[in-house]
Amino acid sequence: MNLEGKNEVIEGIKNGSTINKLIIDKNYMSRKDDVISLAKKYKIKTEFLPKKVMDKISKTGHHQGYIAETVDFEYADVEDILNLAKERNEDAFVVLLDGIEDPHNLGAIIRSCECAGVHGIIIPKIRACQVNETVVRTSAGAISNMKIARVTNLKEAIDTLKDNGLWIYSAEIGGQDIYKTDLTGPIGIVIGSEGNGTKQSIKNYCDAVVTLPLFGSVNSLNASVSCGIVVYEVVRQRISKNKK
Amino acid sequence: MNLEGKNEVIEGIKNGSTINKLIIDKNYMSRKDDVISLAKKYKIKTEFLPKKVMDKISKTGHHQGYIAETVDFEYADVEDILNLAKERNEDAFVVLLDGIEDPHNLGAIIRSCECAGVHGIIIPKIRACQVNETVVRTSAGAISNMKIARVTNLKEAIDTLKDNGLWIYSAEIGGQDIYKTDLTGPIGIVIGSEGNGTKQSIKNYCDAVVTLPLFGSVNSLNASVSCGIVVYEVVRQRISKNKK
Repeated sequence: MNLEGKNEVIEGIKNGSTINKLIIDKNYMSRKDDVISLAKKYKIKTEFLPKKVMDKISKTGHHQGYIAETVDFEYADVEDILNLAKERNEDAFVVLLDGIEDPHNLGAIIRSCECAGVHGIIIPKIRACQVNETVVRTSAGAISNMKIARVTNLKEAIDTLKDNGLWIYSAEIGGQDIYKTDLTGPIGIVIGSEGNGTKQSIKNYCDAVVTLPLFGSVNSLNASVSCGIVVYEVVRQRISKNKK
Repeated sequence: MNLEGKNEVIEGIKNGSTINKLIIDKNYMSRKDDVISLAKKYKIKTEFLPKKVMDKISKTGHHQGYIAETVDFEYADVEDILNLAKERNEDAFVVLLDGIEDPHNLGAIIRSCECAGVHGIIIPKIRACQVNETVVRTSAGAISNMKIARVTNLKEAIDTLKDNGLWIYSAEIGGQDIYKTDLTGPIGIVIGSEGNGTKQSIKNYCDAVVTLPLFGSVNSLNASVSCGIVVYEVVRQRISKNKK
């Protein structure tokens, strides 16, 4: 799929579309240009071509000198994630991200979740990092093995998970001791954003808040590290339970 | 402390010295210059001044047109780390990094270790990321609360730790189940580099290799996430033991 026209290209870049290449009218090369600055900022490969060539590439005929070649990541549905758990005959294991913004964190979270056997990740459609090239690269290939669902409303997704028997835990400070919490059943873990953690309204919507012990003075873990520790605590408890 | 002269400045940048500002002879501004390209690559703030002004700033008198204003991070000794554990009346808890190269990973590791109550981190002096501005920033302030020792030889450091009663575990694939390993005594955890993991010679030097279960097809965690999960498994076991 291509994005064509100035606004569409800008939106695509800002929304984190995976852009293989950005083609820009050769005549714009030397001028001060919003799209060119944006492409530089997001390290998008740029090619300058004559307008005539662009007219041929264009599918809409309204490229305005800007065409972005995108690769679409195929998002899954929440149901796809639950079905995967059923297929594997495992208790559902889902991670919900409440506004992760850094693509490196999203990539690292996908990688950890894939290693831990998480069935899928749910992300919000807005105010959150979407799957883009940095995410794909940072996930070290894990992305092709992970179902990621995008939802407009995280609470609705939590409702769906609850209806399917999952217990939803928010991993945040100020909650109950994670090591005293039984995490062995069907489970959804909510990880908050880098700056603000999980929104109060989402925390209230969860069955409980679980907390890792913190002994330092900084008292906050990086979001992707925190996610890794929590999903591996689920793994540990599940393994330990299965052995009993 | 300032670095003066072309080679010293280049070495300083490459070795990861924390450089506040790089001052370069104004006359070099327009020419193709190794140091300027390097400064751009490492995103170091650069100022161009007339040679006369630089002569006044220079302490050695041999600046060759290049002066780097550095901030020295105060490294600790291995003994300082062991003493901290004694002062706190805790079993020593040390993390050794066998060649972490990415400053974001080093920063995130420092942050996780600080949260987990690790007494200190040991890094090699060569072929490894040193404390630089990116590390300081990524550590989210944790660096000021963490002892970091630099050693020329990781094996010698392991010897010192062993002499002080620590058990040394390498966190790597192909070892014994971490969840079946008692990690509650005085302990050193070796975390390998991003690309190659822990060197075979170092692995052989450890008391054992401990491994996290991996269920995906990617089968490798990000180094900083892996470190976070392992140090928190130590935390969990210690808490659980103290309650018994």
